[in-house]
Amino acid sequence: MDTRFSAAIHALILISASDCPMTSEQIAESVGTNASYIRKLTCLLKKGGVLYSRQGIGGFKLRIPPEELTLYEIYRAISEMDEVRMFDLHQNPNDRCVVGRHIRPALAEEFREIERQAERALKGKTLANCIEKLQAEIGRNGDLNRSMNGTE
Amino acid sequence: MDTRFSAAIHALILISASDCPMTSEQIAESVGTNASYIRKLTCLLKKGGVLYSRQGIGGFKLRIPPEELTLYEIYRAISEMDEVRMFDLHQNPNDRCVVGRHIRPALAEEFREIERQAERALKGKTLANCIEKLQAEIGRNGDLNRSMNGTE
Repeated sequence: MDTRFSAAIHALILISASDCPMTSEQIAESVGTNASYIRKLTCLLKKGGVLYSRQGIGGFKLRIPPEELTLYEIYRAISEMDEVRMFDLHQNPNDRCVVGRHIRPALAEEFREIERQAERALKGKTLANCIEKLQAEIGRNGDLNRSMNGTE
Repeated sequence: MDTRFSAAIHALILISASDCPMTSEQIAESVGTNASYIRKLTCLLKKGGVLYSRQGIGGFKLRIPPEELTLYEIYRAISEMDEVRMFDLHQNPNDRCVVGRHIRPALAEEFREIERQAERALKGKTLANCIEKLQAEIGRNGDLNRSMNGTE
C-alpha cells in the first residue's frame, strides 16, 4: 500500500467535517495533490460503498457515519482487496527440493494469520478515531469544525 | 516489504534443517534465485544477529533455536527497521489548511497503533511454527529432516 490510504483518510476527514460540498479541486489543495488523483480515490471510495455523490448540490457525502466507518472499510475500498496484504511470497521456489515444493502454501498460511491480526486492528479503528487524533493535534488553539466551516 | 522476507524464511528453514553446512549456491537453488541474492539476505541476517558463519566448515548456523527465533527478529533483520511499517503517509499536505497542517502526526499515531498489532503478531510466531506448517504440507508422504539429509 502506497500513500493512497493516508490521502484517502485525509479526503474523508475533509468531506466529513465540511458543511458545504467540497470539490475534487478543494480536496486536492488540502491533500497536496492534483484533482485527478483525488477523483481516482473518490471513485474507489464510491465503488467500495464509503462515499456517494450528492445529486444536484455536487460534492460527496459519507454513506456511513465516521463513528462506524472503520479503517478496514477504507483500506478495502482503496486497495480493492478484501484481505490486508503485508507480505508477498517468493515466486519460484524449486519443486525438486522438498522445502521448495511445499514452502509457499506453508508460509501463505503463516502470513495470513499475521495479516488477519492487522485486519482486526484496522477493524477496531474508525474515521472518528482519526478525527479525534487530529483534534488533539489541533489542540486548544483551534477546532476542526469551526476552522473548516469558516466560523473561526 | 517485497519477497525478501519470504525468501529469508525459506533460507533459514534450509539452514535449520540441514545437518551439513549449506552454501549460498545450494540455498539459492532451492529458493529459486541466484547466490548473490542469497548472500545479500544472509549478510542482513548475520548483521541482525540471526545467523553466523561457521568458521572452517563454512555455511551458516542459527544463533537462536528455531523455537525461539521469532518472525519479528527475521523481519527486523531483513528490513533493517525495528518497527513494522505497513502504511506510508502522504508527503505534501497543505500547511495553510487546518487538516493539512495536523494530519501527518495524527495519522502517524493511528497507523503506529495498527502496526504495533502486526508487530505483536510477528513476535508471536517462530521459525519453528513455519517448519511445523511446512511439515504439515509435506504430510505423511515425507519428513523434512529425512528428506533434507538424504536418509529418505
